[in-house]
Amino acid sequence: MKLATLNDGTRDGKLVVVSKDLTRYCAADNIAPTLQAALDNWDRVAPELEVLARDVEHEVVPCERFHEREAMSPLPRAYQWADGSAYINHVELVRKARDSEVPESFYHDPLMYQGGSDSFLAPREDIPLGDIAWGCDMEGEVACITDDVPMGVSAEEAAGHIKLLMLVNDVSLRGLIPGELAKGFGFFQSKPASAFSPVAITPDELGEAWADCLIHLPLMVDYNGQPFGRANAGVDATFNLAQLVAHAAKTRNLCAGTIIGTGTISNKRADGGPGKPVSEGGLGYSCIAEIRMIETIYDGAPKTRFMHPGDTVRIEMRDDHNHSIFGAIEQKVVQA
Amino acid sequence: MKLATLNDGTRDGKLVVVSKDLTRYCAADNIAPTLQAALDNWDRVAPELEVLARDVEHEVVPCERFHEREAMSPLPRAYQWADGSAYINHVELVRKARDSEVPESFYHDPLMYQGGSDSFLAPREDIPLGDIAWGCDMEGEVACITDDVPMGVSAEEAAGHIKLLMLVNDVSLRGLIPGELAKGFGFFQSKPASAFSPVAITPDELGEAWADCLIHLPLMVDYNGQPFGRANAGVDATFNLAQLVAHAAKTRNLCAGTIIGTGTISNKRADGGPGKPVSEGGLGYSCIAEIRMIETIYDGAPKTRFMHPGDTVRIEMRDDHNHSIFGAIEQKVVQA
Repeated sequence: MKLATLNDGTRDGKLVVVSKDLTRYCAADNIAPTLQAALDNWDRVAPELEVLARDVEHEVVPCERFHEREAMSPLPRAYQWADGSAYINHVELVRKARDSEVPESFYHDPLMYQGGSDSFLAPREDIPLGDIAWGCDMEGEVACITDDVPMGVSAEEAAGHIKLLMLVNDVSLRGLIPGELAKGFGFFQSKPASAFSPVAITPDELGEAWADCLIHLPLMVDYNGQPFGRANAGVDATFNLAQLVAHAAKTRNLCAGTIIGTGTISNKRADGGPGKPVSEGGLGYSCIAEIRMIETIYDGAPKTRFMHPGDTVRIEMRDDHNHSIFGAIEQKVVQA
Repeated sequence: MKLATLNDGTRDGKLVVVSKDLTRYCAADNIAPTLQAALDNWDRVAPELEVLARDVEHEVVPCERFHEREAMSPLPRAYQWADGSAYINHVELVRKARDSEVPESFYHDPLMYQGGSDSFLAPREDIPLGDIAWGCDMEGEVACITDDVPMGVSAEEAAGHIKLLMLVNDVSLRGLIPGELAKGFGFFQSKPASAFSPVAITPDELGEAWADCLIHLPLMVDYNGQPFGRANAGVDATFNLAQLVAHAAKTRNLCAGTIIGTGTISNKRADGGPGKPVSEGGLGYSCIAEIRMIETIYDGAPKTRFMHPGDTVRIEMRDDHNHSIFGAIEQKVVQA
């Protein structure tokens, strides 16, 4: 099934079930008022939502037209957002651009940071930027939402706790990252509010494209209206979502509604080298930092600048029939 | 006023108003069902809670006996928990123990990490520890809860957004910290669930002890029944809570219910040197790591071990009449 949260003027919005083709919805707030409330009681609530989803599909309940622009992030605020770095190609490029090695541990011990989850942007909401020098960048990613996950869960067990999937734009302020990481406590100011896709889906909606706890489809990232990234989220992943959930739960329980992200989707070239731009027949990039790293590797310096007010990013994933699965994240940077 | 969240079997508990002497309470769930709900509408709800608090004080409403052991953390789960490192003495000791300098920037740019906020321990709940080698430690701190804070707020403006104050035990797994910090993304597994004091209070409850957005009282940390720390939270703070809130809000809005912590309370000795144990007439330490650093500085190696199953910690703050202000955090480490 596909779920969305409509903006009804409240902080947590209103839960609705959306048709598979994203054209119509039926309010689900008589089952659970919000998506968090549904996740808090998922075992009881999910079957009721599934029944409603079938009714929406068969058009046997009154539906309204679904507009992606009216959706908030599926969880407009969440109790936890933790983002991994599953596509090590991205890390390898960062390191290569500054002539340093990737530590061997990175291939079996996931990188993960605790992100701010108190107020996400809506999928069509502007990205407020205080200063161009902050180096605003998008990061196209996949994320899952879990139910309650007990401390010490194995990756195999963690797979069963993945209840919903979404796309993410993990907005990053590249100009603030070196200073923050040098302080040793990780990201804080350099990771402002992220935005999630208009719709969250259960993994079964993906059919065979959901395998090994990864989505085996290209993530379509467009920048200022041009194709920028087409990396496949099922390729070159050192860790899958279940492994990332297990990593997060090593020393503590995770509350229902926890969001775990994959980090920037990034593919190597077929010959193992760094990927080429889409305009040159490559799979491109899911963030600007990556093309800047490749420019640095080849030309000694980056030439693509980070986002300025007016720049737009669009992040989407389509099925084999070219239908949008999650709806599109579409955001414009504005001066704050 | 003093507020608490009683365990009623729900995830977010039930909001109650507690008498100043912590002996009785009156349910406030007819005003707001939970503390988060109150914070979501603080300007409207706070005056109603204040009226009820006066009625509780004058015993003109029916009250029940308040038991600290029935309290959850005031926000049993929160949308944001960010912890600063305001008492640079703590950082100076860490660095001194490994012969490195504190970067000059640390004196004007706060250290802050994004903590997990999805499931806090109750103030009397056991601390589950998976492995002694993880190096379990307490950190006694002060924290505030804010209402909605706009991006880019000044420290002066931030002061007005501090609505409630609490104590914290920021549980830390010292054995996991070096490895995680070396990876560059900050703490994650090394910071399991924290616990907060049974009661959250409005700053006016502190009278003159609340000044410059700091609490000018000793934090009483007892370890295994013995006085361990008596550092004054109003002394040696490089940053106050308003400055920490402003730091957190530099690049994004903070949602109502955001918790911002001071980091481990730590005082220098009167002559500027590292503090002595309470048993030797000093102010002691709010975490075990600090006494280990001092042992390292003087003896070349730490001798106090981290917490094992069965070890207990108690964190409290008392007013001039020796009355508990927030109730006590009292936790025992148990094998998970």
